Amino acid sequence: MAEAATRRRGRGGGGAARRAERTGVKIETAKFIERNMPLFEVLNEEALQIIETNADILLEEVGVNFVNNKVALDRWKDAGADVDYQAERVRIPKGLARELCKTAPSRITQHARNPERTVEIGGNTLVCAPVYGPPFVRDAEGGRRYATMADFEKFVKLGYMSKWLHHSGGTVCEPTDVPVNKRHLDMLLAHMTLSDKPFMGSVTEPSRAQDSVEMCEILFGKEFVQNNTVMTSLININSPMTFDDIMMGALEVYAKNNQACIVSPFIVGGAMAPVSVVGTLTQVLAEVMAGIAYSQLVRKGAPVIFGAFVTSIDMNSGAPTFGTPEASQILSGAGQLARRLGLPFRSGGGLCGSKMPDAQAAYETAHTHNAALTGGVNFMLHACGWLEGGLVSSFEKFVMDADQLGAMHKMAAGVPYDENAQAMDAVREVGPGGHYLGCAHTQANFKEAFWRSELLDYKPFETWSDEGGRDTQALASARVQTLMDAYEQPALDPEVEKALRAYVAEKKASMPDSFV
Amino acid sequence: MAEAATRRRGRGGGGAARRAERTGVKIETAKFIERNMPLFEVLNEEALQIIETNADILLEEVGVNFVNNKVALDRWKDAGADVDYQAERVRIPKGLARELCKTAPSRITQHARNPERTVEIGGNTLVCAPVYGPPFVRDAEGGRRYATMADFEKFVKLGYMSKWLHHSGGTVCEPTDVPVNKRHLDMLLAHMTLSDKPFMGSVTEPSRAQDSVEMCEILFGKEFVQNNTVMTSLININSPMTFDDIMMGALEVYAKNNQACIVSPFIVGGAMAPVSVVGTLTQVLAEVMAGIAYSQLVRKGAPVIFGAFVTSIDMNSGAPTFGTPEASQILSGAGQLARRLGLPFRSGGGLCGSKMPDAQAAYETAHTHNAALTGGVNFMLHACGWLEGGLVSSFEKFVMDADQLGAMHKMAAGVPYDENAQAMDAVREVGPGGHYLGCAHTQANFKEAFWRSELLDYKPFETWSDEGGRDTQALASARVQTLMDAYEQPALDPEVEKALRAYVAEKKASMPDSFV
Repeated sequence: MAEAATRRRGRGGGGAARRAERTGVKIETAKFIERNMPLFEVLNEEALQIIETNADILLEEVGVNFVNNKVALDRWKDAGADVDYQAERVRIPKGLARELCKTAPSRITQHARNPERTVEIGGNTLVCAPVYGPPFVRDAEGGRRYATMADFEKFVKLGYMSKWLHHSGGTVCEPTDVPVNKRHLDMLLAHMTLSDKPFMGSVTEPSRAQDSVEMCEILFGKEFVQNNTVMTSLININSPMTFDDIMMGALEVYAKNNQACIVSPFIVGGAMAPVSVVGTLTQVLAEVMAGIAYSQLVRKGAPVIFGAFVTSIDMNSGAPTFGTPEASQILSGAGQLARRLGLPFRSGGGLCGSKMPDAQAAYETAHTHNAALTGGVNFMLHACGWLEGGLVSSFEKFVMDADQLGAMHKMAAGVPYDENAQAMDAVREVGPGGHYLGCAHTQANFKEAFWRSELLDYKPFETWSDEGGRDTQALASARVQTLMDAYEQPALDPEVEKALRAYVAEKKASMPDSFV
Repeated sequence: MAEAATRRRGRGGGGAARRAERTGVKIETAKFIERNMPLFEVLNEEALQIIETNADILLEEVGVNFVNNKVALDRWKDAGADVDYQAERVRIPKGLARELCKTAPSRITQHARNPERTVEIGGNTLVCAPVYGPPFVRDAEGGRRYATMADFEKFVKLGYMSKWLHHSGGTVCEPTDVPVNKRHLDMLLAHMTLSDKPFMGSVTEPSRAQDSVEMCEILFGKEFVQNNTVMTSLININSPMTFDDIMMGALEVYAKNNQACIVSPFIVGGAMAPVSVVGTLTQVLAEVMAGIAYSQLVRKGAPVIFGAFVTSIDMNSGAPTFGTPEASQILSGAGQLARRLGLPFRSGGGLCGSKMPDAQAAYETAHTHNAALTGGVNFMLHACGWLEGGLVSSFEKFVMDADQLGAMHKMAAGVPYDENAQAMDAVREVGPGGHYLGCAHTQANFKEAFWRSELLDYKPFETWSDEGGRDTQALASARVQTLMDAYEQPALDPEVEKALRAYVAEKKASMPDSFV
């Protein structure tokens, strides 16, 4: 990692990055995860082949819609698809989508302005990014309320301070006090100035994707951006089988500028896909292949990620449910399908349906975390902070989940079995009936031996009780405050910051406010 | 299952069982889990072989202690071990322990008095039993307090009412208001009369194991007990490498009576075993092989289970920690070692260190549950109700965890991929831009499609808020009450119940109370 970063700097990329490194405050961030562990794969070869065959059949017989997007239809026609312009329907001959996907890279380097925070997405890696999208925030003190730009900035700061979080994310909450057509500017500025971790670009209009690229050109240098991926952005598919012009327009901007997109069905099973795991996976595969194939028609070699945001539904209430067995099975199966396509894989992280950071939230989050870790996810969006089915970004849950990511790092590191790990001398030294607390092997290894939470309670009952008998949410409130008190803005070249602020001011002045 | 039960009845076993089935109130209990899913195996072949070789070396060079137990030392000497009577040390030549383990069965049928509740332990099965051992109980209303016999009975009733729990367990809490030397009688009586699920016997004195056998002879019939396993009891090893006379005495009673024992190291890593995963696994394997080999010296073919209760330690405070990555790795590795020995495998279930059923409890529990499910556990003790590192049995956590076991059933069932599961007609019917809520496939499948919690909150925010904004603990308190209100005692032949009560009364009258 360090060596790679040096080489990149040697090539002259990222002036801001160079300067940041010279002057930056040292906040420890773990390197992205490289798994040294087996994966859990829920589908057998027969099931995988059935899904792949059926996905091809769906693409050929049913097809997908590219809505309000004649350019896309033309591209598909040129590529050999059967295009119905009237119905905006693209039917893709068997094998074509898969063939087109082959030019997408299997691994993406997403650069951060601080080269130490640059991440690799693909293969055995796992990059964790925070919650994305909620219009509300919640904390123990203030309850649930509409999110503001101040909340957004607080989340970016918490993300910067979270050791086990590799990525600053994108819309960590919707700053509803900023006009819809301008908030992307403030959000990007926050990620660029308040953190030095990698981040995501805007996708709500193609023009906002273009603004994102231009701000990155200020931050990283124009040439660097054209030659390197500095953003990973979230392109949702309107499942079932529909690609709208806004998302495809944003994808086009990013693909043309060599920036990464996650092409991701957004599915509540039973509503946007069949009520079966294999049926849903078939649709997911067809949709992702169509979307990624299209990205390669826009620009061969454009970096893309196989996304899958799929959850189950409570058929009694119609509410989406999270952390369920079916969601885990779909996640695992989607990972297998992505790897067979040779593509990086994204899925959700700490998903839950609970209204507050209670036991339900933690059960559901842990199941999703575990499924993502063992299912081979390369880019875990919503790794921390997600609450209430994605309606709420929670400050307490942010630090709770971010702490859990530390356990994930340790689990992913696998089990060493060298001579020190075998510890035969320790057993010989201690022998039957003894204890290991003071033995030489323990003394030499105890600091690194066991993962230790920086949040959870390990105190004796009496101490815990004397301190108020706090639950996890209360401990998390305190940790949020501790991290915020310790926050210091990472150094950034004042000229770069000035140019970014000028760009934002100018853009904002160029259009009237819009709140729709 | 049903067929097997019929055959057993046809052979004349379990008179009480026959009668219970005729008259019993119908409380639904899921069949024990049969996994139709791959396992997660953390160790590679090389690591496994190193551990096995090292365990053999430890047994031969270091050996194990059988304390205050000349009979055991004699048995080992006769079997070919090197016995130091002075030091009470048994050194077991390479390969001998493994060879002796071969006569232990790979699968155990533990009969319940209601044949529908009989469980299979081994191979692809997973049997869930509740928390075992805490001296305290906790609920939201009364807080933490010493457990009483009334608490014990309430837990047995909750276990009986819990659909996804297969086993009534053993010491679901310590009834501290009953003398130590008599409480096993009341505990067994409660399991036998208040539930019809399988249960565990007493191990705190060999005489109490004998009482357990005799009470089972009243419940099941003497001949049935001698020919069938009706109890699975927990024999802990005093790690490191020490077997005390009380536990070995209890094991002897059970083995001679064809009753199953879990032979289980009780290890807090760093204290009772080395601070490394592989070092700990080596010691676990050596200890379990020695214990199970010994069970086969007592009675060839005695049913036994490879146990592993291993957790990590917080090296700052010395507190045991649960649901940690190292604990999951050890669980996974121990399962691999057990399967290589061809033995059923037991490990912990819903372990956590938290003082209350909050998010910490749920994170840690979910990690342990997941590790046990994917790690191939056949007998999951502490599957529900465990709190505060095993010091507390929690009523709320009991129903919270028991609900989670339903998700485990669904996960274990695997992913069907037959024509119905492929759902191609559904996608064809709905097509791009449609929705699946009303389609024929959804209508036909929605009831079974997704696991649904009977406890967690899936309501809209406004409804949830209007109802008091309850957290999971509050929902669980309500569910405890609902289950208790619905509880009806399963039918039992009045003659059998009378005989059991007479046995208990007579035993109690035969000795003075002891509270130590």
